[in-house]
Amino acid sequence: MNVVGLRTLPEIEPGADLAKLIVAAAGKEAIGIEPGDVVVVTQKIVSKAEDRVVDLRSIKPSAFAESLARTWEKDPRQMEVILQETRRFVRMDQGMIISETYHGFICANAGVDRSNVPGEDVVCLLPVDPDESASRIRADLGVQVAVIISDTFGRPWREGTTEVAIGVAGFDPLWDYRGRTDAYGYVLRSTEVAVADMLASAAGLVMEKASRVPVAIIRGFEFEPGEGSGKRLLRDPAKDLFR
Amino acid sequence: MNVVGLRTLPEIEPGADLAKLIVAAAGKEAIGIEPGDVVVVTQKIVSKAEDRVVDLRSIKPSAFAESLARTWEKDPRQMEVILQETRRFVRMDQGMIISETYHGFICANAGVDRSNVPGEDVVCLLPVDPDESASRIRADLGVQVAVIISDTFGRPWREGTTEVAIGVAGFDPLWDYRGRTDAYGYVLRSTEVAVADMLASAAGLVMEKASRVPVAIIRGFEFEPGEGSGKRLLRDPAKDLFR
Repeated sequence: MNVVGLRTLPEIEPGADLAKLIVAAAGKEAIGIEPGDVVVVTQKIVSKAEDRVVDLRSIKPSAFAESLARTWEKDPRQMEVILQETRRFVRMDQGMIISETYHGFICANAGVDRSNVPGEDVVCLLPVDPDESASRIRADLGVQVAVIISDTFGRPWREGTTEVAIGVAGFDPLWDYRGRTDAYGYVLRSTEVAVADMLASAAGLVMEKASRVPVAIIRGFEFEPGEGSGKRLLRDPAKDLFR
Repeated sequence: MNVVGLRTLPEIEPGADLAKLIVAAAGKEAIGIEPGDVVVVTQKIVSKAEDRVVDLRSIKPSAFAESLARTWEKDPRQMEVILQETRRFVRMDQGMIISETYHGFICANAGVDRSNVPGEDVVCLLPVDPDESASRIRADLGVQVAVIISDTFGRPWREGTTEVAIGVAGFDPLWDYRGRTDAYGYVLRSTEVAVADMLASAAGLVMEKASRVPVAIIRGFEFEPGEGSGKRLLRDPAKDLFR
């Protein structure tokens, strides 16, 4: 399995045709896009192309946002944007705000992020529908690939972020091994594997944080083409022990 | 970055010299082990080599284990072993037992697992000290590589397991980008990346659950050789919002 980051994508502007830019960069870098590839695209450039970027100077924070911002030492305008993206607060403690977004993702600051966007007062939001974004990129690529929109999330108990799949198209992101047997004939009981999150993390290893490598191509990972949705990776609240 | 699974390792017996077997398999498969490689070894074969395998027929469950096993519909002997590996229960609900092991890992059943071990009444425990296991394998390999002992953990909020690094040798598993600037000059504030967990997940993609690919070689991932410990990835309980 080979993982290659694309290094020649231009700055992404609102309305950019990501598939076209990805094909051009992959061509220029002599990698190309082939059937069976997994194309991992960071949330940041998808959000930029979809104009999910907010200039904080245009935001008038509510009294509630002002109050929370004082408590949590945030920019009240950014706090206002976080409120708009939040369905439910999961934890507020130690300077951290962990939200459930209206999509159902649980992450810091409802995914509202200041890094890797141009301008000091600019924040980036998650795409409105990352599965839809992935499907569109996949259709525009015109090749039978899997597409993953990745983002950087923290997690309980363990330090450091990993990459997860917030949008998926072209394959099932969650593989169910229940009922299959292991090498000794033991029937696996509970094994479901978050394959798309693992692919996102593999891609993340070639996308350095401080550089402009927003797309990776994974070649040589075998999967069955089919329908897919990143929502498959969101645990049903009724089955979640850590709500 | 290239990720290759080793397919010709033999069945691992207690006392096996894993480094020697890995070098032999990598040689036979024309991959070899080169300086700068990351060698990812699944917990299961490390535990087998270290004889961390328990025949449940030798276990006499305590009254407490019997009682818990009735409630949670587990084998009372396996429950007894789980108790022995547990420092603290984090959650018991919906048929799931989430333990903190005496090492500090938070995972299902304190890492006591029935899959991929020979014999119907046999369970496998985590290595006593996975960092020590990683260091020993690294020293025995005799090449300047990074070694990761990986295991399969679930996580809150998201379906499916991913691979994590429970033991690390030869590099820092947690990379701190705080204070660095992004492509636009914005100073990153909170970015620490769990690089070793992402490497474990990348390796996991070539280690199918139902087959015998217990080692992967990652080549072309740049890292600075140095000290390392999987404990760096365990969050300080005082800073954990999800204890």
